[in-house]
Amino acid sequence: MQLLIATKNLGKRREIEAALKDLPLDIVGLDAIPDLPDVVEDGRTFAANASKKALALARASGMLTLADDSGLVVDALGGEPGVHSARYAGPRATNDENNRHLLEALKGFTGKQRSARFVCVIAVASPAEVLFTIRGECAGTIIEEPRGKNGFGYDPLFLYPLQNLTFAEMPAAEKNRISHRAKALAQTKNELERLVKMGLM
Amino acid sequence: MQLLIATKNLGKRREIEAALKDLPLDIVGLDAIPDLPDVVEDGRTFAANASKKALALARASGMLTLADDSGLVVDALGGEPGVHSARYAGPRATNDENNRHLLEALKGFTGKQRSARFVCVIAVASPAEVLFTIRGECAGTIIEEPRGKNGFGYDPLFLYPLQNLTFAEMPAAEKNRISHRAKALAQTKNELERLVKMGLM
Repeated sequence: MQLLIATKNLGKRREIEAALKDLPLDIVGLDAIPDLPDVVEDGRTFAANASKKALALARASGMLTLADDSGLVVDALGGEPGVHSARYAGPRATNDENNRHLLEALKGFTGKQRSARFVCVIAVASPAEVLFTIRGECAGTIIEEPRGKNGFGYDPLFLYPLQNLTFAEMPAAEKNRISHRAKALAQTKNELERLVKMGLM
Repeated sequence: MQLLIATKNLGKRREIEAALKDLPLDIVGLDAIPDLPDVVEDGRTFAANASKKALALARASGMLTLADDSGLVVDALGGEPGVHSARYAGPRATNDENNRHLLEALKGFTGKQRSARFVCVIAVASPAEVLFTIRGECAGTIIEEPRGKNGFGYDPLFLYPLQNLTFAEMPAAEKNRISHRAKALAQTKNELERLVKMGLM
């Protein structure tokens, strides 16, 4: 049984492959399948976006498909940047522009008001239906100046309090052990294992 | 903002209303909306069935809609009865027939082989999309003779080991405190609260 990983991000694909390597599934990348559609991520939740992408690509490829949607949620900003994380400062915003936009939005915010969560929702679909979605979260704080060079997105502003390091200061292996995506992938592995055992794939 | 509860089971509807009563949502029953479609629950997972039902009824009613799908999962039976819980002994099977069928299937099984989980997946959809799904589980053991008169379905065979009572021996209030549906509803409440705060409804 093959599993299509619906991400163009090679780092993400490697992380997913590593997490699922013990399952009896052949992992396939988007590059292996020609003419797949581009899916517009216009859902109102991470789960809606991940589900839409997984189902569209499962239908187009005829394969079991895994997709994720993830972003940063700041409760004091009414959940923003949320599903707009990648385009918070505008449709073609860079990571730096998004980070500056976030610092601007949080100007004058202190203490608990700077609490934030990285959220990742993974959806797995067959061509017929979305089989399940799984949510992983990682809680932290938005600091006032970027720190660190690793990772991407909001990582330089996201302080993981237990280690007093930003995600951009951690080695990739360490971030991949504790991150929102790691948590979602661990549960996704269990759920896929269960479905394989039940003969549903 | 109104929330349609997509269940014909009055006991379930009361349980859901009680769990969500502190939210700023007006809860509406299926009986209030004429001409809603019957949704065929032919999905391969609880999440697929709950999502299908929530989305179909959200589209038909134009309202935010909550649906659930639930059942009993026995790992030693490859996950059965699973999504077939209500019709395990046949398309129009009674609770008693399903229970007898389960005891038959588990004949000769002992100890851990009789482990089972009740699973409940709740889906919430807008007319545009499934906003999220939440899974709740409750672990127990299938005993060899039915015990108790409360509840429904497999409750008389499902022993909750922490209290050494079957679900059918517990008062409804107690079952509703610890059950798979209670767990899913508690998380659903949090998720709905978050979406309301974010202005997504």
